Amino acid sequence: MAQEKSPSTTRRSERSRTAILTAARELVSEVGYAKLTIEAIAARAGVGKQTIYRWWPSKGAVVFDSILSLSEGADDGEIALPDTGDLEADLKTVLRATVAEFADPGFEAPIRALHTEIISDPELAAAYREKMEAPMREAKKRRLRSAQDSGQLDPNADLDLVLDFLYAPLTQRWLTRSGALDEAFADALVDATLRAFRGS
Amino acid sequence: MAQEKSPSTTRRSERSRTAILTAARELVSEVGYAKLTIEAIAARAGVGKQTIYRWWPSKGAVVFDSILSLSEGADDGEIALPDTGDLEADLKTVLRATVAEFADPGFEAPIRALHTEIISDPELAAAYREKMEAPMREAKKRRLRSAQDSGQLDPNADLDLVLDFLYAPLTQRWLTRSGALDEAFADALVDATLRAFRGS
Repeated sequence: MAQEKSPSTTRRSERSRTAILTAARELVSEVGYAKLTIEAIAARAGVGKQTIYRWWPSKGAVVFDSILSLSEGADDGEIALPDTGDLEADLKTVLRATVAEFADPGFEAPIRALHTEIISDPELAAAYREKMEAPMREAKKRRLRSAQDSGQLDPNADLDLVLDFLYAPLTQRWLTRSGALDEAFADALVDATLRAFRGS
Repeated sequence: MAQEKSPSTTRRSERSRTAILTAARELVSEVGYAKLTIEAIAARAGVGKQTIYRWWPSKGAVVFDSILSLSEGADDGEIALPDTGDLEADLKTVLRATVAEFADPGFEAPIRALHTEIISDPELAAAYREKMEAPMREAKKRRLRSAQDSGQLDPNADLDLVLDFLYAPLTQRWLTRSGALDEAFADALVDATLRAFRGS
């Protein structure tokens, strides 16, 4: 049975947790994932190393959590996309929000830093996929399956391919800064993807 | 007027040029772009630094050339995609060839190394776009325009978006190793892109 904590202990824990996640996010943006150490996170957060290791088993775990904690609602466990019954409108809402997030340096810098390591580190790439991408991808697929059920998406569509079409051009433009990342682009990705996969 | 060279001088120059490009490609794979030096390229190629500076103005220029020289025909200036009159068949030929290239470590390793730097270095990203991506993108657009003329592609299609749909999912799978990069995937990208942009 979990030990009961006094309200002030809980508040103090929550403050430490937030300080650690903020420090991890700032440091991965500043020095990159490879050079980041648990010691540096502890020092910036003003906690002991042991406090970090009590909650997270590894550097990867605390960095992934620090980035996940940026996404609203991610802490509640279940991630869900809006489902108003209108797939096109819902996808445009989600992709416009993604475009807005990537315009925010505080959001995009740590994920960009992580991506530079992922490309040259297959193990980190696998961990990233398992801890961060897979849960998001599953949430997106739930929304697409609902659209398949309501006849708004080809029931035989390969949902991984649908998600690649929606997100890969956006990710590429963001990472390589090769073009405007705006709402018009978000909408165009949704429109073209639905033309390809709406079914007949 | 260019000074005429004896056949043996030309052969020697060609040998040096090939040795420099090979060394640049190997070294960028091994140490990454940031840590690569002209001195190291010269040492591995067995030439003087001045020989490199005689032909290339900068590290970026020799590295880009070393990667471009991997692509058959790139030395001849004009890059062209096959045009048999059948857009679907031609795009599948090209994307299958791209998939095969990315399966070859000698080809993909230097480009992967360059990509890790591009993500965190906006200036290098711009140089990469100008020297390497823009000429390829223009060649691909010429093939797409020919398809627009023959009624196989929507005449109003945004060709940059068409290319993003064809290539971004492929690039993402390659860089993040998130799925199989095979002929079936290449064909699926072409099929879905044409459904989105074939027009009515």
